[in-house]
Amino acid sequence: MTIKEQVKLASEATPGIASVSTEAKNSALERVAHNLDENRDKILSANEKDVKEAKKANLTPVLIKRLELDNKKIDEIIEGVKSVIGLEDPVGKVLLATELDESLTLYKVSTPIGLIGVIFESRPEALVQITTLCIKSGNAVVLKGGSEAKGSNRILFNLIKDAIEQDAVFIGSIQLIETREDVRKLLKLDSDIDLIIPRGSGALVKYIQQNTKIPVMGHSEGICHVYVDEEANLDMAVDIAFDSKCQYAAVCNAMETLLVHRDVANKFLPMIKVRYDEQNVELRGDERVKGVIGCINASKSDWECEYNDLILSIRTVDSLTDAIDHINRYSSHHTDAIVTSNEKKAQRFLNEVDSSSVMWNCSTRFSDGYRYGLGSELGISTGKIHSRGPVGLEGLTIYKYKLIGDGQIVGDYANGIKKFTHRQLV
Amino acid sequence: MTIKEQVKLASEATPGIASVSTEAKNSALERVAHNLDENRDKILSANEKDVKEAKKANLTPVLIKRLELDNKKIDEIIEGVKSVIGLEDPVGKVLLATELDESLTLYKVSTPIGLIGVIFESRPEALVQITTLCIKSGNAVVLKGGSEAKGSNRILFNLIKDAIEQDAVFIGSIQLIETREDVRKLLKLDSDIDLIIPRGSGALVKYIQQNTKIPVMGHSEGICHVYVDEEANLDMAVDIAFDSKCQYAAVCNAMETLLVHRDVANKFLPMIKVRYDEQNVELRGDERVKGVIGCINASKSDWECEYNDLILSIRTVDSLTDAIDHINRYSSHHTDAIVTSNEKKAQRFLNEVDSSSVMWNCSTRFSDGYRYGLGSELGISTGKIHSRGPVGLEGLTIYKYKLIGDGQIVGDYANGIKKFTHRQLV
Repeated sequence: MTIKEQVKLASEATPGIASVSTEAKNSALERVAHNLDENRDKILSANEKDVKEAKKANLTPVLIKRLELDNKKIDEIIEGVKSVIGLEDPVGKVLLATELDESLTLYKVSTPIGLIGVIFESRPEALVQITTLCIKSGNAVVLKGGSEAKGSNRILFNLIKDAIEQDAVFIGSIQLIETREDVRKLLKLDSDIDLIIPRGSGALVKYIQQNTKIPVMGHSEGICHVYVDEEANLDMAVDIAFDSKCQYAAVCNAMETLLVHRDVANKFLPMIKVRYDEQNVELRGDERVKGVIGCINASKSDWECEYNDLILSIRTVDSLTDAIDHINRYSSHHTDAIVTSNEKKAQRFLNEVDSSSVMWNCSTRFSDGYRYGLGSELGISTGKIHSRGPVGLEGLTIYKYKLIGDGQIVGDYANGIKKFTHRQLV
Repeated sequence: MTIKEQVKLASEATPGIASVSTEAKNSALERVAHNLDENRDKILSANEKDVKEAKKANLTPVLIKRLELDNKKIDEIIEGVKSVIGLEDPVGKVLLATELDESLTLYKVSTPIGLIGVIFESRPEALVQITTLCIKSGNAVVLKGGSEAKGSNRILFNLIKDAIEQDAVFIGSIQLIETREDVRKLLKLDSDIDLIIPRGSGALVKYIQQNTKIPVMGHSEGICHVYVDEEANLDMAVDIAFDSKCQYAAVCNAMETLLVHRDVANKFLPMIKVRYDEQNVELRGDERVKGVIGCINASKSDWECEYNDLILSIRTVDSLTDAIDHINRYSSHHTDAIVTSNEKKAQRFLNEVDSSSVMWNCSTRFSDGYRYGLGSELGISTGKIHSRGPVGLEGLTIYKYKLIGDGQIVGDYANGIKKFTHRQLV
């Protein structure tokens, strides 16, 4: 099949899966969990081949570890499918109901978006997570996984497809593509695909954003900040600045730049340096920072850099205003935190910092769909249209207006024969 | 000032206006209403010059009428401003509140989108409507109006600007650009502008969609359908089919194609033809339609055409499924209606037709922000991301997550020292 034919099949499935019942979706997911459980051998043997190839191709041990599946990981994958069954159906919610006039009622009802393209680089379990979230939200999906996991992705895809297509409504609704050339073609199908979700490196996301007219949901960078105010509890600030950088440095919600009010720099910087030194964090500071602790010189390019590593830039600021200005200028609008005991200042920071998540007296690392209690997370959006921050099932929905009458025509309202009541019901 | 400098000024105003109080926004709007009222002479004299120029340039009487302002229209403009004061503030609403753990609370709060570009072709009053909606929703805006209304737009803009900038927080937040060259430059500023809203012809909207990486909200076409089911009350169907086409043919929510179930074609078509003949509607039908009533031959290009005029294509279908298929294939996903007395069929139509508004037993012409009770309408979106259908104030907002703690770090949760409670508060 060509990519066009695959997209056509998926597209044709959208009206049916948009209105399928919660029970049918959950049954399909039960069959998925069961089919994965019954075919562990096939999954493991396909994965073994991928791993063998990856070793031949000299992939790094980290990448190989990400690729590798075992029975414990398959347990987790199946648990993941079951947790999606447990999530509330995001489709069919009445978001608004208005009586426009007697026997003329308007409903705003949540619906699936339609046909979604997901391009992911990471572990094969991502395929299962993404696909099950699309099934639960009534969306059709075209999937493209990392080439190093090709065999694993193919068997996981086929097991899911076989399981859901036992119910004819799902036929064609999930599609797998495998080549970069297909991705290139997919990105051109802006009249068929409603949304592209890239999950992977900043380079992948940027490439996609630059090469499609389809709306893209995701983030290319995570340049997060912690600002230590002059009214901060400095012990708390040390814990938060340490956790935000060191709890897991390679992820998008880790801090890249620490901002410190000049009045507490002399006291705070030596305190935090002790902690960072334990973890061999490389520190790059401005002139004032260098006057207090030993560190490398930081330049403008450091404020613009996502290290994704145990490197941190530190800048002193003269005021809360300067901190907000720095963040709004250099932040990737992902997650930024203030540490202060002054509520008024905190509220100003939370309101004026233009980021998807803003934190007061806690670590930037909390910015995550699971920690936020959103259930499974599809990704984090730094865009300001549709969804922002950690995106769960709700981010895969939009709404439609349904107007139900008994013969009303606009002419009667234009002529003044009838009048709108506009009574809010929900 | 260059367009880049204008955009920079507007952008710098965004953090301040994002967190300004409802009272300050309403006061600014009160000053706008007052300033317009006090300067009617200036508005009318600038408008007179525009009209004189337009007549010299041989614009059509319809366009000149759209351009022309008088004291009654200014009354309406001022009433419009006052009605926006009366609308609920869409910013700062708590959409979700979750206790993640003791003293660690997550709030999802509605915020302005940021900086919006609005390009409109129509009447000068559009400038006032758009600007006041942006002020109320805390967004900065760059405006570009039609060149034929240049003088009127400039005076209206300056009166609004002077009125709002008496409160320093609004300084720079609204900007006017006047040339096509500036629009071209604006469309390139995708890292500064968060959303473009084009209001005007399909050609304008398509040009913008094709020439920017900024998200675009709007619609380029309105190809709307009415489907008369074999179980329709045919008198009702006649009224709805007539109103949907003839109540105002030149607008996006008017019907362009009438679908009729074959079993009622013989009875229904002569009934509706009498009504259409009164209004000299040109009818184009398929072979079966031509077998029943006199009309021109319809071809595939008719199913794809937005006439915006007293022309209608008519097609017979064999089933509800055929009707849904036709609509999902040819509709512009704007507004489509079914007339039937069978609830099950109606629900299937409402669920499976993939359009922003779907109607049962009422006219497509109801699809409109005012009629839906949304207050002022910015436009109608046929996109499936962010906003769909008639877009009011809420469509100019997004949200951010605010997390408030007292020193919590992720390490404690990763190590199992602490556990999330995820208790829903709102």
